[in-house]
Amino acid sequence: MHVKIYEESGGIVLELPLTKPTGKVRVKRRTKNFGVPVATRREALLEKDYVEWQISYATEEASETAVESIRLSDGRIGFELAKILCEAKRLGILRERDFKEMKEFAKSVRDKTIEEKEEIVRIRVGEEVSGGFVRFEEKVPVFVKEADKYFIEIVLRHKQKAVGFQSMVYLCIWLKNMENSEGNPPIGRPARSREHVKFKIIDGNIIKEVVKAFAIASRKHNQDISEIVEQVLEKC
Amino acid sequence: MHVKIYEESGGIVLELPLTKPTGKVRVKRRTKNFGVPVATRREALLEKDYVEWQISYATEEASETAVESIRLSDGRIGFELAKILCEAKRLGILRERDFKEMKEFAKSVRDKTIEEKEEIVRIRVGEEVSGGFVRFEEKVPVFVKEADKYFIEIVLRHKQKAVGFQSMVYLCIWLKNMENSEGNPPIGRPARSREHVKFKIIDGNIIKEVVKAFAIASRKHNQDISEIVEQVLEKC
Repeated sequence: MHVKIYEESGGIVLELPLTKPTGKVRVKRRTKNFGVPVATRREALLEKDYVEWQISYATEEASETAVESIRLSDGRIGFELAKILCEAKRLGILRERDFKEMKEFAKSVRDKTIEEKEEIVRIRVGEEVSGGFVRFEEKVPVFVKEADKYFIEIVLRHKQKAVGFQSMVYLCIWLKNMENSEGNPPIGRPARSREHVKFKIIDGNIIKEVVKAFAIASRKHNQDISEIVEQVLEKC
Repeated sequence: MHVKIYEESGGIVLELPLTKPTGKVRVKRRTKNFGVPVATRREALLEKDYVEWQISYATEEASETAVESIRLSDGRIGFELAKILCEAKRLGILRERDFKEMKEFAKSVRDKTIEEKEEIVRIRVGEEVSGGFVRFEEKVPVFVKEADKYFIEIVLRHKQKAVGFQSMVYLCIWLKNMENSEGNPPIGRPARSREHVKFKIIDGNIIKEVVKAFAIASRKHNQDISEIVEQVLEKC
């Protein structure tokens, strides 16, 4: 696995790769509210670069970042976000009232989830242009929650192989708030071969925000993440 | 190669694969001005299905669909659309006045190309929603030219590995206007293993429209396609 999640001196370390541009973790550069992929081995990394992690909460296979005691009703086991929640519970980074807050939030938005309420539309917006082409505009809803060290994006996409939409959740952490094995942010130089950087979670807000993002992303995510929050509270 | 282009009884046959969903030729289903990929081997094909071909005009390698006598100034050789133009010239489907029309059109739009004039923007459109997420809207310009048997789309995309945009040109042909080896449209049943369908060009409009699409898509495409049109007129 490319991502590692582990406890270190009372915090939870997320260790993420800088050089896996085709995976779930990509380095991007922010330009006018967009993230553009960065060729990290060739270009010097900048202050406006971040790691975009398409974080998951369940998987079908056991692994280092899975938590086998957490099981969704479809048989999948807890993964990544589930492991973070579990560690946070054990370390006291998240307390009972935080779990209550997440559960109540998920319940309160269950009928307002993005995948079910929103759509991508393509609207004819103009008359013919040169050559008889007609101008349309595709409108894609995006939801962003910004914090100091990170932000979270929920983007609606067309399903790959069916009619309909799906919500994608990305946790994005600014490189300047991460550190490499020598304790420095990887800024001002290209990434090294197979370089990873660490982000240390010491308070629970980032975790609660990601849980809330899944809760509003889709009905299915809402149900799944509610189950996971419930089980972590009992079992971790 | 998956695409074949050849002369048959005075017309130009385009032979396109139905079962290569990851290639340049994909079967899609039209729903509210969008194309959704169809799993052609599993689902019955419908009247509203079409072949979306990301047609090209130049390549770096010789092949069956290349025309080696056509050379761009960067060394690439004519391909697909160049071959169609060349066949159309030889067969009299396109005449001198058509080449003149294409050249003049390209010249007239050289300073109004989509890649240089348009952009994808992400605009904050609303106040905070549940959980403190802020609603943005991504607006993507799309240009469509519709004809009876086909339509052409020009879509702006973010460049994959750099800041900026690129225009993509797609020739889309309705399956109901194509035929398989037995002379029937492949409608009402899934595609067969490695099935191809044919579309026969007998008048030059479709070719001129695709050339015009490239001419307005970007400055670079405009220059390239002008060179190709010029050379086809001289050499084919």
